[in-house]
Amino acid sequence: MARVVVDVMPKPEILDPQGKAVTGALARLGFAGVSVRQGKRFELEVDGELTPERLAEVHRAAETLLANTVIESFVVHAEEPGTAPAQVVD
Amino acid sequence: MARVVVDVMPKPEILDPQGKAVTGALARLGFAGVSVRQGKRFELEVDGELTPERLAEVHRAAETLLANTVIESFVVHAEEPGTAPAQVVD
Repeated sequence: MARVVVDVMPKPEILDPQGKAVTGALARLGFAGVSVRQGKRFELEVDGELTPERLAEVHRAAETLLANTVIESFVVHAEEPGTAPAQVVD
Repeated sequence: MARVVVDVMPKPEILDPQGKAVTGALARLGFAGVSVRQGKRFELEVDGELTPERLAEVHRAAETLLANTVIESFVVHAEEPGTAPAQVVD
């Protein structure tokens, strides 16, 4: 079992109304000087070994279904097993 | 200008209908043996130096607005400037 993460973000030249809304809300809450863009994060549990072929398949899946490549860019990266992020919070 | 990323994911014990839908769609498209959970990724551009106080503020912002800590967990991590991910794909 391997874990692969696909991060999908709106391309820089694309307007991001969700991010704009969050930016505005943060300003109103007193968190000024912050600009936000919002995207999606997919955590995939892939059966078996993570071979380069399997990773290429995930890449194709991301291209086909997870990201709309007209307006979004995506990054695929394998996560090493057993490495928990340092700052996980509830 | 510093960039901070906040990853928000549904907690493991919480059902994730979006992820379930994506998992089903991937299986129908021929990508079998993959289980998906879907979360959100926020990229924050923070004005000025990224001091520990500023990072703590982002942490509070994430807790207050970006994540619903009843059902979601989040991770805050600073991104070093000038490090482009290796596998960015349009």
